[in-house]
Amino acid sequence: MARTQNSFPSRDAHRAWLAEQAALPRGFRVGSTRFDFTPKEAPKPARMTLTLIALDRPTPDFAAVFTKNAFPGAPVIVGRRRLAEPRLGAILINNKISNVCAPGGVEASETVSAAAARHLGLAPTEVLPCSTGVIGWGLPVESMLAALPAAASSLSAGSILPAAEGIVTTDLYPKIRYASVGEGRVVGIAKGAGMIEPNLATMLVYVLTDLAVPRDTLRALLARVADETFNRISIDSDTSTSDTVALVSSGLVPCPDLAAFEAALRAVCTDLAEDVVRNGEGVRHVLRVRVSGAPDARTACALGKAIVNAPLFKCAMAGNDPNVGRLVQAIGKHVGATGLAVDLSRLRARIGGQEIFADGAFRLDYAKEAALVAHLKDAELYQSKPAADGTFAPPVDFPPHERCVEIEIDLAAGPASATILGGDLTHEYVSENADYRS
Amino acid sequence: MARTQNSFPSRDAHRAWLAEQAALPRGFRVGSTRFDFTPKEAPKPARMTLTLIALDRPTPDFAAVFTKNAFPGAPVIVGRRRLAEPRLGAILINNKISNVCAPGGVEASETVSAAAARHLGLAPTEVLPCSTGVIGWGLPVESMLAALPAAASSLSAGSILPAAEGIVTTDLYPKIRYASVGEGRVVGIAKGAGMIEPNLATMLVYVLTDLAVPRDTLRALLARVADETFNRISIDSDTSTSDTVALVSSGLVPCPDLAAFEAALRAVCTDLAEDVVRNGEGVRHVLRVRVSGAPDARTACALGKAIVNAPLFKCAMAGNDPNVGRLVQAIGKHVGATGLAVDLSRLRARIGGQEIFADGAFRLDYAKEAALVAHLKDAELYQSKPAADGTFAPPVDFPPHERCVEIEIDLAAGPASATILGGDLTHEYVSENADYRS
Repeated sequence: MARTQNSFPSRDAHRAWLAEQAALPRGFRVGSTRFDFTPKEAPKPARMTLTLIALDRPTPDFAAVFTKNAFPGAPVIVGRRRLAEPRLGAILINNKISNVCAPGGVEASETVSAAAARHLGLAPTEVLPCSTGVIGWGLPVESMLAALPAAASSLSAGSILPAAEGIVTTDLYPKIRYASVGEGRVVGIAKGAGMIEPNLATMLVYVLTDLAVPRDTLRALLARVADETFNRISIDSDTSTSDTVALVSSGLVPCPDLAAFEAALRAVCTDLAEDVVRNGEGVRHVLRVRVSGAPDARTACALGKAIVNAPLFKCAMAGNDPNVGRLVQAIGKHVGATGLAVDLSRLRARIGGQEIFADGAFRLDYAKEAALVAHLKDAELYQSKPAADGTFAPPVDFPPHERCVEIEIDLAAGPASATILGGDLTHEYVSENADYRS
Repeated sequence: MARTQNSFPSRDAHRAWLAEQAALPRGFRVGSTRFDFTPKEAPKPARMTLTLIALDRPTPDFAAVFTKNAFPGAPVIVGRRRLAEPRLGAILINNKISNVCAPGGVEASETVSAAAARHLGLAPTEVLPCSTGVIGWGLPVESMLAALPAAASSLSAGSILPAAEGIVTTDLYPKIRYASVGEGRVVGIAKGAGMIEPNLATMLVYVLTDLAVPRDTLRALLARVADETFNRISIDSDTSTSDTVALVSSGLVPCPDLAAFEAALRAVCTDLAEDVVRNGEGVRHVLRVRVSGAPDARTACALGKAIVNAPLFKCAMAGNDPNVGRLVQAIGKHVGATGLAVDLSRLRARIGGQEIFADGAFRLDYAKEAALVAHLKDAELYQSKPAADGTFAPPVDFPPHERCVEIEIDLAAGPASATILGGDLTHEYVSENADYRS
């Protein structure tokens, strides 16, 4: 899926690399502000960041895809309506509270959007609201209205970094990817980091471009590219109620080549999708599963998802344990449960380039096992270590890299293939989601 | 699902209660033996227990259902053939190695079965072999043949406890349930404890009875009862390659009432299924999800499974955190992904008797939250605490109880209902499956 496997000697080097990606396309400004408030539903104060992405001039050329969760958040309900509006002028994003199934949630989203529009000289329907965070709580509307002037006055045209930093929740670092097409740029940012098997998952992704691509084309391209990138990852098989991917063009640079634009969009989305997994809650190994020889892409995707969502296999990966029996279990469960008509005696499986299964039986020996362990250790992002109180959290300063556990499954049953990305299941995931209230 | 919610003041009290359940039906003997061996695939010695369940006289009246995993273990392949044989005389069970997709696995199973048959004066096809443990390794045939005389000479008619203890792997204690019908008994044993979303899951279950019920009736009853009990639990959504539930009658006691027999079988299987969850790998809370108001039972089951398999909700339960947003997320994901045609604005949800969702919105306040936390703490089996090396394991001596986290979902969309059992997702699960090689 990804083209690169960068390796950074330090956090500082990673940060410098992010700053290089971050130049905004022409026609956009971003800004953010942070404030404390006390939720109605909780006894202690919380901190929220309000992020604005604003166009210099409202554009008709925007696209968005949203979660398929049947309990969509209020901003998703509002966002779906916005797709019918003639123009988009700004995106307003808050973290901490996702505004899902809270009484009066849609009204709260519209109230905050309208206030942002007033500050920016826009119509209320020209603002797309997005929220991520705790499900069930209501937005602190008064506090957000009070913070809007600071957010508006922080808008700046230099770098997308303030927005990439503003939208995160449990992410370990901001995520930015870009590609160039002629004189124009395609720049995307994303937040993860849990409840992610996009369909879409709270994943929020914003891709900005100054390349002039008309609205209908943007929407068709985004649907296709999102399906082949963000819909092929899973952190934990959960699907957020707030997932949103938006693509906005300021239209200031003529697009010389639509195919090149699609390739640039695909590259940015492919890399951002991998970033979301790599930065997923508790992820210490990224699993890249390539399923080939499938009768069709849908079958390949479903089998790849079954593998990256199999808890016992994910735990084995966390422990650098090449427990290939659990991989075969996951395949067999999926094929048995779905009644998929493939001849499993032809299946071949490799991990890290080592053949581990062929002709209906395992192909294992000590030397291969040692090579598999080495491959797993090489792909580990950081070592797991409990704090004094027994909880687990990632170290703040591990040097990032982009190596994956490479898993190849050849069904020898057709021409289709797909690559699915997932993560391991770790103490850090459990600590993040059980030891603390999110 | 279960009828009882026992609470035991100590491990000793639980053990005494198990011994009371354990009297064998007439016509059966059980025994086991333990030995050390060195697997071909691993550099250090391992320990295996070989368990025998023998009939005094071979019986035509036996039934079994097996995993739906498309990579079934060799003993499952052999076991399916045994269903066509006229009589069953014994069941031979080994733990430690599951004999799945190992080269020559079926031959190894048949060799060991034939040797057991010779010791017991049976035909080779009258022995049902079963294996559970590591997937991918081959059976240590020579060591097993050497151990068979000790297993055969240990056979005894008093108690099923030696078999219940012999078949376990990562289980925390043996599992035994019984019911009486007139002068006869139905006694079942089970092992869990991971890779369990039966369809079937390695779950091994043996139910013995002296009540005379003919073969075809036994098989029809077992299919129906297993589907409504063992197929409605999930520890981790993984489906073992070795799952087996066998039901064997010695036929020594006339069955006075077939409906009473089915009720007894259902009671034993219901309680054993709950035991398997309660003793599941890392389980510290049993989640009992009752879905009602569904258009049909299949829909109710699928939604219940989606809830007990949602990792973020499972983590919240582990932390005694009533994060009801994650429950609604799981329901919304399932309904969104399956395209289920139900009006979710009518859904009502309760946890521990507290209404938390109705009319499309959460119903939460501080007092309710406190009651939910108390309900979760009351259902906790033991507190999580890391060892000095940062790994997590259950305390060996916590006093068992049978309280559950009670979750009720009313779809208000039809007459059907189903109860699904699952567990939380804990550090103990990750330690069991990542920190050590199984």
